[in-house]
Amino acid sequence: MCAIVGIYGNDNAARLASLALFAMQHRGQEATGISSSFEGKIYTKKDRGLVSEVFDDKALSYLKGNMAIGHNRYSTAGGDSILDAQPVYAKYKLGEISIVHNGNLINKNQVRNELINNGAIFQTGMDTENLIHLIAKNSKDRLRDRIVEALEKTIGAYCFIIQSRNKQFVIRDRYGIRPLSLGKLKSGGYIVASETCAFELVDAEFIRDIRPGEMLIFSDKTDELESIQLFEPEFRPCAFEYVYFARPDSVIDGKNVYTTRENMGRTLAKNDKDNGIKVDMVVPVPDSGVPAALGYSNESGIDFKYGIIRNHYVGRTFIEPTQEMRSMKVKMKLSPMRSLIAGKSLLVIDDSIVRGTTSKRIVRMLKEAGAKEVHFRVASPEIKYPCFYGIDTPSKEELISSRMTKDEVCKYIEADTLEYLSIDDLKNSIGAGTNYALESFDGDYFVRK
Amino acid sequence: MCAIVGIYGNDNAARLASLALFAMQHRGQEATGISSSFEGKIYTKKDRGLVSEVFDDKALSYLKGNMAIGHNRYSTAGGDSILDAQPVYAKYKLGEISIVHNGNLINKNQVRNELINNGAIFQTGMDTENLIHLIAKNSKDRLRDRIVEALEKTIGAYCFIIQSRNKQFVIRDRYGIRPLSLGKLKSGGYIVASETCAFELVDAEFIRDIRPGEMLIFSDKTDELESIQLFEPEFRPCAFEYVYFARPDSVIDGKNVYTTRENMGRTLAKNDKDNGIKVDMVVPVPDSGVPAALGYSNESGIDFKYGIIRNHYVGRTFIEPTQEMRSMKVKMKLSPMRSLIAGKSLLVIDDSIVRGTTSKRIVRMLKEAGAKEVHFRVASPEIKYPCFYGIDTPSKEELISSRMTKDEVCKYIEADTLEYLSIDDLKNSIGAGTNYALESFDGDYFVRK
Amino acid sequence: MCAIVGIYGNDNAARLASLALFAMQHRGQEATGISSSFEGKIYTKKDRGLVSEVFDDKALSYLKGNMAIGHNRYSTAGGDSILDAQPVYAKYKLGEISIVHNGNLINKNQVRNELINNGAIFQTGMDTENLIHLIAKNSKDRLRDRIVEALEKTIGAYCFIIQSRNKQFVIRDRYGIRPLSLGKLKSGGYIVASETCAFELVDAEFIRDIRPGEMLIFSDKTDELESIQLFEPEFRPCAFEYVYFARPDSVIDGKNVYTTRENMGRTLAKNDKDNGIKVDMVVPVPDSGVPAALGYSNESGIDFKYGIIRNHYVGRTFIEPTQEMRSMKVKMKLSPMRSLIAGKSLLVIDDSIVRGTTSKRIVRMLKEAGAKEVHFRVASPEIKYPCFYGIDTPSKEELISSRMTKDEVCKYIEADTLEYLSIDDLKNSIGAGTNYALESFDGDYFVRK
Amino acid sequence: MCAIVGIYGNDNAARLASLALFAMQHRGQEATGISSSFEGKIYTKKDRGLVSEVFDDKALSYLKGNMAIGHNRYSTAGGDSILDAQPVYAKYKLGEISIVHNGNLINKNQVRNELINNGAIFQTGMDTENLIHLIAKNSKDRLRDRIVEALEKTIGAYCFIIQSRNKQFVIRDRYGIRPLSLGKLKSGGYIVASETCAFELVDAEFIRDIRPGEMLIFSDKTDELESIQLFEPEFRPCAFEYVYFARPDSVIDGKNVYTTRENMGRTLAKNDKDNGIKVDMVVPVPDSGVPAALGYSNESGIDFKYGIIRNHYVGRTFIEPTQEMRSMKVKMKLSPMRSLIAGKSLLVIDDSIVRGTTSKRIVRMLKEAGAKEVHFRVASPEIKYPCFYGIDTPSKEELISSRMTKDEVCKYIEADTLEYLSIDDLKNSIGAGTNYALESFDGDYFVRK
Repeated sequence: MCAIVGIYGNDNAARLASLALFAMQHRGQEATGISSSFEGKIYTKKDRGLVSEVFDDKALSYLKGNMAIGHNRYSTAGGDSILDAQPVYAKYKLGEISIVHNGNLINKNQVRNELINNGAIFQTGMDTENLIHLIAKNSKDRLRDRIVEALEKTIGAYCFIIQSRNKQFVIRDRYGIRPLSLGKLKSGGYIVASETCAFELVDAEFIRDIRPGEMLIFSDKTDELESIQLFEPEFRPCAFEYVYFARPDSVIDGKNVYTTRENMGRTLAKNDKDNGIKVDMVVPVPDSGVPAALGYSNESGIDFKYGIIRNHYVGRTFIEPTQEMRSMKVKMKLSPMRSLIAGKSLLVIDDSIVRGTTSKRIVRMLKEAGAKEVHFRVASPEIKYPCFYGIDTPSKEELISSRMTKDEVCKYIEADTLEYLSIDDLKNSIGAGTNYALESFDGDYFVRK
Repeated sequence: MCAIVGIYGNDNAARLASLALFAMQHRGQEATGISSSFEGKIYTKKDRGLVSEVFDDKALSYLKGNMAIGHNRYSTAGGDSILDAQPVYAKYKLGEISIVHNGNLINKNQVRNELINNGAIFQTGMDTENLIHLIAKNSKDRLRDRIVEALEKTIGAYCFIIQSRNKQFVIRDRYGIRPLSLGKLKSGGYIVASETCAFELVDAEFIRDIRPGEMLIFSDKTDELESIQLFEPEFRPCAFEYVYFARPDSVIDGKNVYTTRENMGRTLAKNDKDNGIKVDMVVPVPDSGVPAALGYSNESGIDFKYGIIRNHYVGRTFIEPTQEMRSMKVKMKLSPMRSLIAGKSLLVIDDSIVRGTTSKRIVRMLKEAGAKEVHFRVASPEIKYPCFYGIDTPSKEELISSRMTKDEVCKYIEADTLEYLSIDDLKNSIGAGTNYALESFDGDYFVRK
Repeated sequence: MCAIVGIYGNDNAARLASLALFAMQHRGQEATGISSSFEGKIYTKKDRGLVSEVFDDKALSYLKGNMAIGHNRYSTAGGDSILDAQPVYAKYKLGEISIVHNGNLINKNQVRNELINNGAIFQTGMDTENLIHLIAKNSKDRLRDRIVEALEKTIGAYCFIIQSRNKQFVIRDRYGIRPLSLGKLKSGGYIVASETCAFELVDAEFIRDIRPGEMLIFSDKTDELESIQLFEPEFRPCAFEYVYFARPDSVIDGKNVYTTRENMGRTLAKNDKDNGIKVDMVVPVPDSGVPAALGYSNESGIDFKYGIIRNHYVGRTFIEPTQEMRSMKVKMKLSPMRSLIAGKSLLVIDDSIVRGTTSKRIVRMLKEAGAKEVHFRVASPEIKYPCFYGIDTPSKEELISSRMTKDEVCKYIEADTLEYLSIDDLKNSIGAGTNYALESFDGDYFVRK
Repeated sequence: MCAIVGIYGNDNAARLASLALFAMQHRGQEATGISSSFEGKIYTKKDRGLVSEVFDDKALSYLKGNMAIGHNRYSTAGGDSILDAQPVYAKYKLGEISIVHNGNLINKNQVRNELINNGAIFQTGMDTENLIHLIAKNSKDRLRDRIVEALEKTIGAYCFIIQSRNKQFVIRDRYGIRPLSLGKLKSGGYIVASETCAFELVDAEFIRDIRPGEMLIFSDKTDELESIQLFEPEFRPCAFEYVYFARPDSVIDGKNVYTTRENMGRTLAKNDKDNGIKVDMVVPVPDSGVPAALGYSNESGIDFKYGIIRNHYVGRTFIEPTQEMRSMKVKMKLSPMRSLIAGKSLLVIDDSIVRGTTSKRIVRMLKEAGAKEVHFRVASPEIKYPCFYGIDTPSKEELISSRMTKDEVCKYIEADTLEYLSIDDLKNSIGAGTNYALESFDGDYFVRK
């Protein structure tokens, strides 16, 4: 999960890109970077850290030019290598190029091996390097043709923004798995960003989503945008963006994220209507469970209460509690509201259960704080399969629902009852009529190899 | 507004103090400090920054001993002087002493001038220095007697924890204006903290609030706590703790803060019952307006919606928007949920209006995002008077309600309607039967000089 | 050992003070600070770290005004407390005051105890606090009179610069133990600094040294400097400034430090003239042994060689060698020039021997690198007594020459021969006719109590 | 100019590499990095900053394994890109590889263009990337054969250390332009380093220099070192290492650097013997002019004096003097010893004159400090040609001696007289009988394309 942004045709390109990345910080906090183009040269600044730490005035004044692309990186398995930050820059036959990428290429190892067998070197673990190699090895004279042919060998969930010395190419895969939207900056020029929440901060007006399989080209020469439909679209947007990743004020492919989450909660409530369980309040696991809990409350008429408080000051390093204080660790982020919940039956709502360990800690914490009953509700279906389309889920073995039945999970997390959304519930909550990417829930790895 | 903590009789005293301060970070982010006592010597570490930045393992291992006091400092007018961090340490006739303080001494200038006229020097702007001087200049043989006599000259709202080489003295003023609670650590010993939310993290059980006018003494020699009633209690706890400062999961003087805020919202809803205004949703100004907005929604049946999203990544420094981007600045913290509010009539709830500038920006931002109407509700009465009892309110001239009528404020912030709680509403929302400190609202500066 | 500076009557006062402190960084690297006065208010900035780290443009623009005092602090025993940085600031009866101090007050405990018994508090371990208390407790109407009376109770080696809202008072003790010089800034106004090496950087012309027992007053009201002879002078400047502390390009009380060090080396050579020892080269322990080694070489005609190289990149933290690498640690700072010294007899010159451990490591390192013989020469007499006049020497027990004879020391450090300067040699090397402070060598603690 | 190191066969490989890099910090302060190999995987840590800043215990414990290579990077033209730090790592057909490089490849653009035309991408500006591509594109089965063939296409001055998962390949170009020495670690295994000064710190014994055109292979399988003579040697070591770059305690190709510098000074003195100029003292420009000045003094009998003092506290950022203080800027690094030089005739010795601006500032500073005459002597010939063999000299236009005659330079720098070494003087000072690389002085760009 990452964030990408492109700004084209605005003299404050890098500054606007940094603001957009700031608004999308929730999609990645490990590293951030921006490339700008100015007078035939590409300037890049990338580093570990938050957007607000990396981009000060000095960095932004280095990033000259009226076009820029940027990236926020989610934490990665392999340590904090600055080399795995984006944009990825390269010199190649046609000049200079810089790329940002959100997604995951499922044939990356195969492509990489072919490239390596033909003598290519890879300096990072990022699949973004694949695309640059494919572009560089192509023999076409125009970058756009090289990109097109490179993409023909590229299979997966992806959004790319590719910047040359004077153009930007914006591409979304044929399934539209990852979100990408186009806006018009009131101060001039265009913005493309993973989420529309970035538009608000830079004062841009939403135009439309990038279409599945579309390549959009920004260029000096054209007065209007140039759009090429590269692939036959087979629209399957990722359901998990609605469930968890996106900021609630974003609108993804026409649906307001917050509202879809409310709907998920409402559906959970409808399903609970005749189950005979009496609870005193609906309690969200903050922050991600809040909209669903509000929906549940609205539908059921049961009071919504912040029975768990989240501490936002949790930083990157901290005093480790000693061994005997280990139980305190979970409470550094989430704290039970004892006086509210003592002796009460709670309907607790979280967005999902992945490994089950956090849910178990939450239930135990609530019971230790006096909760009489904890009925756990999950605003998504059981996650049984790892995602290979750009979300950082663990392996099948670590997914609790791939090993346990619902009842076993309920027992494991020590809840009194446990209910999920069904897959149909989820689809209807987001909006019927769309064929969502649901591989984490149903194992349908639909991307054709 | 600050946080104080004392730990007594636990080998992890400094570590527990740091965890408690972490839980109370919302009461002050500018500086933090801890003093511990070990083998007749006091160790102090204090610095600018968050608790999680200042207290690493190295700092905590320096702070040896089984008793510790700590402090979080709210941002101060006079720059970021490290010298104004607490605890305040001094050598004096009876040995070493270290003090933390939450509150404000209203006779501080008079006491300070008397002390200065008698040759004292003041190295900081903190009124805590007054108390040390009064203790040091006293001629009694026992520290406790010196403290008692020093407090007789000390007028204001205060909670002190005074640590000597082997004792702790915990004092709350006769009015109990600022909160202070006593807990028992499950791992041994006691904790005293400004808010009970700290107890959760360190695994402590709430015992009782420190009584108005009480001095509690922790000492090796006594098996049980020693309590002295220094002053005739005239209980008047600060209403603003409930309105704004305290963490919602704290219980202050027997009242759960979250619940009192819900009540404030309910009361606003009751007052609105027959006003004929039709709104589509209740929207909180996050995070502080959330509980009241929930209460309003529950009472009125109008849907609660997160129409404004808060970005928690706002750090201390950031890319300044250029002049022409100035309007973007407010949006870095708060962002309107355009798709939810466009064309809608909103009932917006904030905890208070101080200068009016933020409220005006919020209303304008919502209208620019398409809100049809913005009805502003404030979960507290009009703030007409500066607080001298420990809250960092601006001068009378800067308080918009001291210069403007409600209608004028409504016009200034560009709202369609504006309503506050009445003072009686506020009292009843927190809990009838207590004589609250309400000086910001009614100008009753009740502390006797 | 510290550095102090005062700038008066120049609009760039703080900036010039920071440059002067930078030139005197060798006198203290732990902390640094500056106070300026502007429109009746004193501004102070002090922090841990080097001058170049603490004083950036932001700090300097905060330090407004045309007068400033500054201080570099030598490392202290008690940890890195920022509270022990100078200037020391206080409010007192006559207003605001800020003080910098170089030296040591030998009656500090007695004065402090008296003050404490009268109710004073001490917030730091610095004796500078004493003076402020004495000034504050005095009942005179004018600051200058209070300073005079406070100094009457102050015994020791000291240089003070005291800044009020519009004046500066510069004081040197009656013995002139610590250096202090007056210069005229070409850009306007005056500078007072511990060492004249500061004058070069700020473009100031040396006027004269502050006289022993003198108080110099800078003030708006006087066109010319006002000088008061507070005490009968008994001039006894510290010999150690010449031996070790001062920068070689400074001129202290009329003597160029570099030249006095050359003389010390020449004298060692004269003393060695007929000793029958044949050496191949003179090797300094860099950097402090260099001028004496050059003097020795010039006098004896034996070649001077940099047989030991100093690494200037040694910072504050570093990779600790593992246990078995421990022997490498000394080499991180000093490295033997193997190819130059292998098989050779060396005459090694260092400025002094304190504990003996460093000398032993150096001799051993040289022998391991192949030196045939190491004849150790010390450009000062045996240090048998701790200094109480402002130099940070260890206790008597730790001084190797207070426990061992010259021969025993020679054996301990594993040198072939060992010679010191006699006390008379030292006096004559610096310049006959002055009664130097030599207490580290002769135990004559001459300061009258 | 950079430093490289390889450690093979020692469990503390990365730690020893960091110590060696610390000892060679003078060859590059901008960035540093180390790659280790452990159980078939290469670990890399590189960052901006000094060795002592980048390599703490955490970094070193990440760098597991018993072999490591490291690099210090000299400041580069193109900003402070972390991407231009070394080692350069890549995955390629045979596995993983990491390379460090000191030198400059003169056919780099041609090779790069060919590679780019064949579809390669370059992510950095470093010519080290060329070698990796040549190795990766080669079709041989063994890495060693690929390296050999890659080197056949590589023209220039270079030292490489190439590390695979279990081997190290050490290569020096056929001319031996850049230095590289082999040592045996007393704690086990081998070290290869740019300078022998690194051996002292890690307790290694010098074995021999890597031979021109040699490839040395460290491998598990062989008990003894494997050496392959890749190219016919044409030994032409860089004279500038002796003149300026190397640390004086290093021995390069059999010559102690310090001694060669002394010889340069002696030769200058011999040349001055009958010139009729009377000077009072020999003054080095510290630190690099010191050994030559000592040699001059020894030869001429004229006293050596530290007439210029160097301030070692100059860090990376500092208080910029204001416009009118601009003249102070040079004095922050070098300060004249006024009392020593006033009224005196000085013979000032520096190692070289490049642009002439620093020399001019020094002469002017000395004259303003009262020097009667300044006779400038340069311990190298006139630099008339840019170096393309690994030294960071400016373009021909910027080299003052390519535009001006000796007399013109003398006038420009405002010296009374000016003399250089002749090219023959330089050769003889380093050691007759070797054909040195002297292209900066004679324009003989001897490397065959």
